[in-house]
Amino acid sequence: MLSFENDYVAGAHPQVLQRLVESNLELLSGYGSDYYCDSAREKIKAACACPDGDVYFLVGGTQTNAVIISAMLHDYEGVIAADTGHISIHEAGAIEYTGHKVLTLSHEQGKIVPKHLEKYLQDFYQDDNREHMVYPAMVYISQPTEYGTLYTKEELTQIARICRQYELQLFLDGARLGYGLMSRQTDVTLADIAKLCDVFYIGGTKVGALCGEAVIFTRNNTPKHFLTIIKQRGALLAKGRLLGVQFDALFTDGLYFELSRHAIEMAEQLKALLKEKGYTFYLESPTNQQFIILENDKLSMLSKQVTFSFWEKLDDTHTVVRLVTSWSTTKEDILQLKHIL
Amino acid sequence: MLSFENDYVAGAHPQVLQRLVESNLELLSGYGSDYYCDSAREKIKAACACPDGDVYFLVGGTQTNAVIISAMLHDYEGVIAADTGHISIHEAGAIEYTGHKVLTLSHEQGKIVPKHLEKYLQDFYQDDNREHMVYPAMVYISQPTEYGTLYTKEELTQIARICRQYELQLFLDGARLGYGLMSRQTDVTLADIAKLCDVFYIGGTKVGALCGEAVIFTRNNTPKHFLTIIKQRGALLAKGRLLGVQFDALFTDGLYFELSRHAIEMAEQLKALLKEKGYTFYLESPTNQQFIILENDKLSMLSKQVTFSFWEKLDDTHTVVRLVTSWSTTKEDILQLKHIL
Amino acid sequence: MLSFENDYVAGAHPQVLQRLVESNLELLSGYGSDYYCDSAREKIKAACACPDGDVYFLVGGTQTNAVIISAMLHDYEGVIAADTGHISIHEAGAIEYTGHKVLTLSHEQGKIVPKHLEKYLQDFYQDDNREHMVYPAMVYISQPTEYGTLYTKEELTQIARICRQYELQLFLDGARLGYGLMSRQTDVTLADIAKLCDVFYIGGTKVGALCGEAVIFTRNNTPKHFLTIIKQRGALLAKGRLLGVQFDALFTDGLYFELSRHAIEMAEQLKALLKEKGYTFYLESPTNQQFIILENDKLSMLSKQVTFSFWEKLDDTHTVVRLVTSWSTTKEDILQLKHIL
Amino acid sequence: MLSFENDYVAGAHPQVLQRLVESNLELLSGYGSDYYCDSAREKIKAACACPDGDVYFLVGGTQTNAVIISAMLHDYEGVIAADTGHISIHEAGAIEYTGHKVLTLSHEQGKIVPKHLEKYLQDFYQDDNREHMVYPAMVYISQPTEYGTLYTKEELTQIARICRQYELQLFLDGARLGYGLMSRQTDVTLADIAKLCDVFYIGGTKVGALCGEAVIFTRNNTPKHFLTIIKQRGALLAKGRLLGVQFDALFTDGLYFELSRHAIEMAEQLKALLKEKGYTFYLESPTNQQFIILENDKLSMLSKQVTFSFWEKLDDTHTVVRLVTSWSTTKEDILQLKHIL
Repeated sequence: MLSFENDYVAGAHPQVLQRLVESNLELLSGYGSDYYCDSAREKIKAACACPDGDVYFLVGGTQTNAVIISAMLHDYEGVIAADTGHISIHEAGAIEYTGHKVLTLSHEQGKIVPKHLEKYLQDFYQDDNREHMVYPAMVYISQPTEYGTLYTKEELTQIARICRQYELQLFLDGARLGYGLMSRQTDVTLADIAKLCDVFYIGGTKVGALCGEAVIFTRNNTPKHFLTIIKQRGALLAKGRLLGVQFDALFTDGLYFELSRHAIEMAEQLKALLKEKGYTFYLESPTNQQFIILENDKLSMLSKQVTFSFWEKLDDTHTVVRLVTSWSTTKEDILQLKHIL
Repeated sequence: MLSFENDYVAGAHPQVLQRLVESNLELLSGYGSDYYCDSAREKIKAACACPDGDVYFLVGGTQTNAVIISAMLHDYEGVIAADTGHISIHEAGAIEYTGHKVLTLSHEQGKIVPKHLEKYLQDFYQDDNREHMVYPAMVYISQPTEYGTLYTKEELTQIARICRQYELQLFLDGARLGYGLMSRQTDVTLADIAKLCDVFYIGGTKVGALCGEAVIFTRNNTPKHFLTIIKQRGALLAKGRLLGVQFDALFTDGLYFELSRHAIEMAEQLKALLKEKGYTFYLESPTNQQFIILENDKLSMLSKQVTFSFWEKLDDTHTVVRLVTSWSTTKEDILQLKHIL
Repeated sequence: MLSFENDYVAGAHPQVLQRLVESNLELLSGYGSDYYCDSAREKIKAACACPDGDVYFLVGGTQTNAVIISAMLHDYEGVIAADTGHISIHEAGAIEYTGHKVLTLSHEQGKIVPKHLEKYLQDFYQDDNREHMVYPAMVYISQPTEYGTLYTKEELTQIARICRQYELQLFLDGARLGYGLMSRQTDVTLADIAKLCDVFYIGGTKVGALCGEAVIFTRNNTPKHFLTIIKQRGALLAKGRLLGVQFDALFTDGLYFELSRHAIEMAEQLKALLKEKGYTFYLESPTNQQFIILENDKLSMLSKQVTFSFWEKLDDTHTVVRLVTSWSTTKEDILQLKHIL
Repeated sequence: MLSFENDYVAGAHPQVLQRLVESNLELLSGYGSDYYCDSAREKIKAACACPDGDVYFLVGGTQTNAVIISAMLHDYEGVIAADTGHISIHEAGAIEYTGHKVLTLSHEQGKIVPKHLEKYLQDFYQDDNREHMVYPAMVYISQPTEYGTLYTKEELTQIARICRQYELQLFLDGARLGYGLMSRQTDVTLADIAKLCDVFYIGGTKVGALCGEAVIFTRNNTPKHFLTIIKQRGALLAKGRLLGVQFDALFTDGLYFELSRHAIEMAEQLKALLKEKGYTFYLESPTNQQFIILENDKLSMLSKQVTFSFWEKLDDTHTVVRLVTSWSTTKEDILQLKHIL
């Protein structure tokens, strides 16, 4: 069946897999201390224009969110997120499991609004009861968001400024970062993100790797004994090479960006096709996730020939669904979809 | 200074203290195994018309909420509460510290709306992604609420029905329960609560005791090894007698209800006085907490002669404040306030 | 029945209770901000010769241990304790519940041996795998220990030196501190403890109070937002006065020391009596807990007339039991025991 | 440099990698719901003669230990392990991080002694204070142990019997299980383990996979909502295929056992070589980990040509080191070592 269900349906990009095959029988030290990891770290820091950054590799997104947030917060602190944020809803309470509250702000198209953030913090610091409340100490944003939308450079700059003012850390979830960076409608670069955020990660799982997320602490702010923390959370891979080799391949000759650009190209063709066919968009997304509104009858019919994600019930007769492209989507997939829609 | 600040400004009701004095030199076994605790348990079960109930004494409200919720939920489960619920905001993340998410619903005058609860649960069980979400397993309500309002018997019955249908436990925070039971505008009795809830507590701290909350598990549903759980949370008092003696006194000859009725009588006089003086109420509260809207100038002036709680900024020139009566409020206090307002 | 079971069988010392009665109807602010708390803090700091100390009041021992240890350790750190330490065995896993490992050393008569501690730390820092291990960051000792024994000033000094060298914090559990300070065989003063430890507490529950432990951070090292941490753990008493008034009474005119001295006097009489009657001591304890070895027949017989604690089975025919004196033990109790033994 | 350092120095066995390459571009559903995972599950259940078993794939050993233990214990329960157990020492407190205490027993050659276990449980249930203690609810053993030793079938049977009697769960960590099953000195089969244990896992990381551990719940005892629990712990791989494909390959045509047998063959050659050269063994290990005692001078010399693990300082002039073989060790490695020793 034709699949637009998500961006992790295929294995690894062939060039990434090829590097795993080539390096397979080399004997390497464990836990991320091998030279593929080192090489990948250097290439990532160069790509981020962040020579003083500190790079760690973790396995998946929820794990990365939980490890970073719990490692950077004190017990009495919480993390601010949009109410649609992945950590707010779809991580089975992974953040709370580490003892920390997710403090939610109403989203606008999946994004935190700088003004709302500022008001929240002003109110908190004016509240006489704040000693009985969770101290906000970090802002979590995702780029692209769970709705495929993007923060502009201006929005990121404002959020970063507010974070500095109130001494919060800014953490950017980049599980789909490539698809944001290669969007035709973004003015945000990897260097901008490294400059504005305290910590962020570059997603591998959804952009060409079998697994893996590259975490960058941007300002000599790696939590003390972070390797031990990773181990304690069950997140330390014995064969760290699995992550190092893949990220080394992804950041050689711009492969990561090339893959991402391809997915965006496919998404643009998908959008054009959907528009042409008269579908209604739920919102305007400039990245690889597209949300449309379907009549339930139409939904049933399409479901027989193409897979996509149920997003939410809009009303009794309409449903929001999500179609996703990725590095593995082909022109043939789009063509085939054209005949189905 | 005249105080309407909260319901824990004074020590214990003299009759309660008297019992502590009289029993002081008796040598008693520890950890809640003494006969004052046993006697208090029997009297409370009788008052609740809940002969099969199981009663435990804990020290304070936040502790009680955290111990009960964490003891009754599995790791992957969360508790539903109004977004104004005490556990949602003013307990410094105590529930999350035990690893559980507080799932919030928008409140109406501090209350959960049965229809909203039902929709939340319907949506959850229709969501294909629910395995990646926190399972709702308990509903937390407070009676009276943080806004002084009360659930009607009909509302409680509906909430209880929804809980049964979706296999959630119903937990009622009764930190101020006496003031709810003695309200002139309630149709809810202690027996109703024991019948409708899986677990609830009768607050002592705010109703005449130095400290202490009496937890009632209503249907042979006490968590296994609950005493050990209490110990593990640092909530087991060596001299359990301190709680047993106080609750035994409070539930002898209806003292608990008498104290509560007095506070309600004082609250009614306070309301009448505030109305007479033309103050604007923020909402209609039938219990011992009254919320009024003050111009900021007026607020400054009053603050010099009487203490009350800042609640929230309404706009640039108005503020919501809370005035509270308790068992220790006197007619003279009201009279004195009359001269100040 | 005659009781030598533990040091929390009676209520509060009459002078302590008297102060609760006298202050009962004063209207006071909550959460430890009242002037009784302030007064008690000043008196305690004076008694400790620790003018820059910071004093907090908590309710019970397990709670205090869990709050302090979890507040002062990073996630990846653990606390070293004797394998007989209260936190190692008899707190139902309260420390682990906060996420931290208790790293145990073999005890000698309930005490950590400085040399063993030093070796443990040397080994840890020489271990290539230490990044996969829990970092030792605190030493927990109790004075008196769970066996009634006492660290000498020399031992405490050595342990403190080792802690400084390896950057560990030294935490002293003083649940029975008075009985240690007033022992006839100690050279350790309250000022010594304040000077050598980073944090310690003065037990109230077992020395004349209804409840309460006074925590002293000795070197401007109170954890940031400690009040919020206390609240988050469910350990913040609304009517903080209950603790403030009691400690204010205990530290007025040396009452705390006087009560403790009395218990020691009773313990010395108990020891003399036991020796006179030919009982075998399990170990030599200079404080209020005395451990003797009983033949099982004798144990059965005595149990009918006097209560004491089972400690451990020594062999098939002998048992170790504990007899405890306290501020509430009377000369008559000793006399009565004489006729029974 | 010649490596006998550990059993995770190489990538995946070529046949395993080959299957990853072949299946790479197939579009598969996520989170372990693909047919490679299903196929692997069936093959594993067949290999275990455990048709009613329930199989899950996790990424690494520490993660697996923490997820299983925390999922199967109630809050107030702990897990018993040898004091040399991996969870006791080398997992950075991962179990404690989930809130549970590791209750240690003294080991004999890395193993729990059935008699010691029985005594521990007898003592616990005779202890009047057990309500203030952590309830033992699971026994953790590793096969092979951290010292390369093996439980006999008789020992496993006894431990299982004791577990049944005291209602404990028996959990076997099989991170190196293949090397135990293929030992020339074992009488334990995979079917025995499935029959005796409540839950165990078959290690992939150390036996031919890039990563992955296969967990088997043996008696319809999978924790409720276990997938959600895995997600909550950050342990759910989006591309579950990575694990499914590898285990499917490992359990096709007995590859897992063949690889393991090869490592054992290499270990036997290594042992013979070491004996021949007159080295002193620290203990007798029938599996792929060999422990020898080296004079420190010899240690320095060897370290220049071959890598192995420091284990512990024996005395001032001698050190225990570990040499490990694996599926990737070759006869040439042994030959080359011969010239060095």
